[in-house]
Amino acid sequence: MVTPCSSAIEALFRNEIRQMQPYVPGEQPQVGKFIKLNTNENPYPPSQKVITAIQQSLQARLERYPDPLGTAFRIRAAEIFNVEPDWILCGNGSDDILTIVTRAFVGPGQALRLPYPSYILYRTLAQVQGAMHEEVLFQPDFSLNANFETSHENLRLVFLPNPNSPSGTIIAPPRIAELAGRLTCPLLVDEAYADFADYNCIDLIKHNPRIMVSRTLSKSYALAGLRFGFLIAHPTIISMLRKVKDSYNCDALSLAGATAAIDDQAWLKDNRQKIVATRTRLTEGMRKLGYRVEDSQANFVWCTRTDVSLEPIYRRLKTDGVLIRYMNYPGWGEGLRISVGTEEQIDACLSLLKSYE
Amino acid sequence: MVTPCSSAIEALFRNEIRQMQPYVPGEQPQVGKFIKLNTNENPYPPSQKVITAIQQSLQARLERYPDPLGTAFRIRAAEIFNVEPDWILCGNGSDDILTIVTRAFVGPGQALRLPYPSYILYRTLAQVQGAMHEEVLFQPDFSLNANFETSHENLRLVFLPNPNSPSGTIIAPPRIAELAGRLTCPLLVDEAYADFADYNCIDLIKHNPRIMVSRTLSKSYALAGLRFGFLIAHPTIISMLRKVKDSYNCDALSLAGATAAIDDQAWLKDNRQKIVATRTRLTEGMRKLGYRVEDSQANFVWCTRTDVSLEPIYRRLKTDGVLIRYMNYPGWGEGLRISVGTEEQIDACLSLLKSYE
Repeated sequence: MVTPCSSAIEALFRNEIRQMQPYVPGEQPQVGKFIKLNTNENPYPPSQKVITAIQQSLQARLERYPDPLGTAFRIRAAEIFNVEPDWILCGNGSDDILTIVTRAFVGPGQALRLPYPSYILYRTLAQVQGAMHEEVLFQPDFSLNANFETSHENLRLVFLPNPNSPSGTIIAPPRIAELAGRLTCPLLVDEAYADFADYNCIDLIKHNPRIMVSRTLSKSYALAGLRFGFLIAHPTIISMLRKVKDSYNCDALSLAGATAAIDDQAWLKDNRQKIVATRTRLTEGMRKLGYRVEDSQANFVWCTRTDVSLEPIYRRLKTDGVLIRYMNYPGWGEGLRISVGTEEQIDACLSLLKSYE
Repeated sequence: MVTPCSSAIEALFRNEIRQMQPYVPGEQPQVGKFIKLNTNENPYPPSQKVITAIQQSLQARLERYPDPLGTAFRIRAAEIFNVEPDWILCGNGSDDILTIVTRAFVGPGQALRLPYPSYILYRTLAQVQGAMHEEVLFQPDFSLNANFETSHENLRLVFLPNPNSPSGTIIAPPRIAELAGRLTCPLLVDEAYADFADYNCIDLIKHNPRIMVSRTLSKSYALAGLRFGFLIAHPTIISMLRKVKDSYNCDALSLAGATAAIDDQAWLKDNRQKIVATRTRLTEGMRKLGYRVEDSQANFVWCTRTDVSLEPIYRRLKTDGVLIRYMNYPGWGEGLRISVGTEEQIDACLSLLKSYE
């Protein structure tokens, strides 16, 4: 047995991979009992129809490859979003969609633009690709200034999470249409949280084929464990992206579950109503405790304050069994991002915070 | 509604993506009743323990993100392969593993080597990456000549499917150890079919950290619909590859199913026995019909003949409800790749072929 030297092994990798920091997702403790308000999961179980559909597909033939294009899902989703099925690409979570889109549009040395602070994964995707990332600071009110809409030849893709994380804020569709009209490269509007918002950008796609919208079932359909996301975009874009995706990127069970989930719009409406009501309760509770809280259009709220340091509060909550997300963005500042749980979970979190005063 | 011009939309993509042909997997008819012998699926259903494990995990919390590292699977697989869990990386099918490895090791303009004819996806992965692919022709007996083991600075990764598809042939581990010893870049041995073979390369990894072995549950565990594969490699390699993979690349249900599958080695042994016996029957039957058939170490056989053209035979079988794979490799020649089905399926295929004489 040769004892290999780690640095010699690392030297086999591309420079970009060696130099980059890994993307670190929110904690997913596999043991211990936490009130988990740190990764924007839905606190409620998914629709029973999803479970039933998966159970039925278990009786089918798992030894066979799944439908590589997710036809049944695309047909149902197309009806709901008022597009044709060839406007939809299925992904193994919307992270898979973001990966495919980055690999398709941005070559090494080219640039990918993202707002800051937003989803850190965008930067990681640019780094893996050997591309440059242009982070444009949000205005203090989380609007975008003119820097975000300037084009240059090297700019090949723009990511815009809307609603944004960690802020929970949203940019109105007319402003996004204007932005996309000025950009010469594609704009991906990441609508992971759009089901909790008052509006979305899907209609814009029909007027500007450079706009794409990504969605996930992880948050609003309570299916983070299933890994299913999708992209809505012009059919020419979808057909080109198929060249880049793994052939069978979605498995038979997640396709069955996703199709049942998107079909159950009544469940979505009901769940959304509960989350939005609890979001209001959480926002008001945190404001009463002295936090500045952004008006949220997502299933989490972004809380800041300048009089005390926030990391100790996050740590203390964790010790007391409540996991929230502490974020500290260099050049921007720190904050607590709290996912909207059940009423009971949010009340427990608020009570603990009150007891720390 | 603007009527967009397709070529203007295509111009937004990277040149590499525009120019490449899409990888076309074997037909997966979603309708119609076929004896399906074209994509090397297992003809038997998976272990009942897999179904039970998935049913149980459906009762758990699908609204939560899955374990990003697949810890339970890695612990069990590590015992079976006699390595530590940090030698294992889980993937959304072994295609996901191949994609991750390509993105990690091969930059644009660098070279990836593969034998020819083999798995066409390797070439596609190089193309998406903007890398060059060096296809080295197998010898007529499907051994590898010295061209396969020469190194140069630009060569960053070598793929070697073993057993190979479409030939079903295998290269013995000592020869692979020698090959890897001469290469200065990593060698990925794609063991998608190794469970049907007499030997494999897992022990080699411990002696040369530049050797990696990928596996899939699609074939030998009858779980093509589940999308689960994994890589066994030195822990330093695994930890670097984690930077490239999507955080949650495996869903909760496939992780539960995969863990139960790998745990049921008795099922594997029994299934393997059946497939190997039917493989012999298929090989002998095809030889009796006048085909040259390579001795197969996989769950398919590669059949050629020079006296008649093979595509019409494939088409006629399809009309008669039997799907096999017709392959025509420019510069190499054509052949029929027939997956090992059940005895009844193989007998039906052989009878049809006999009736065409």
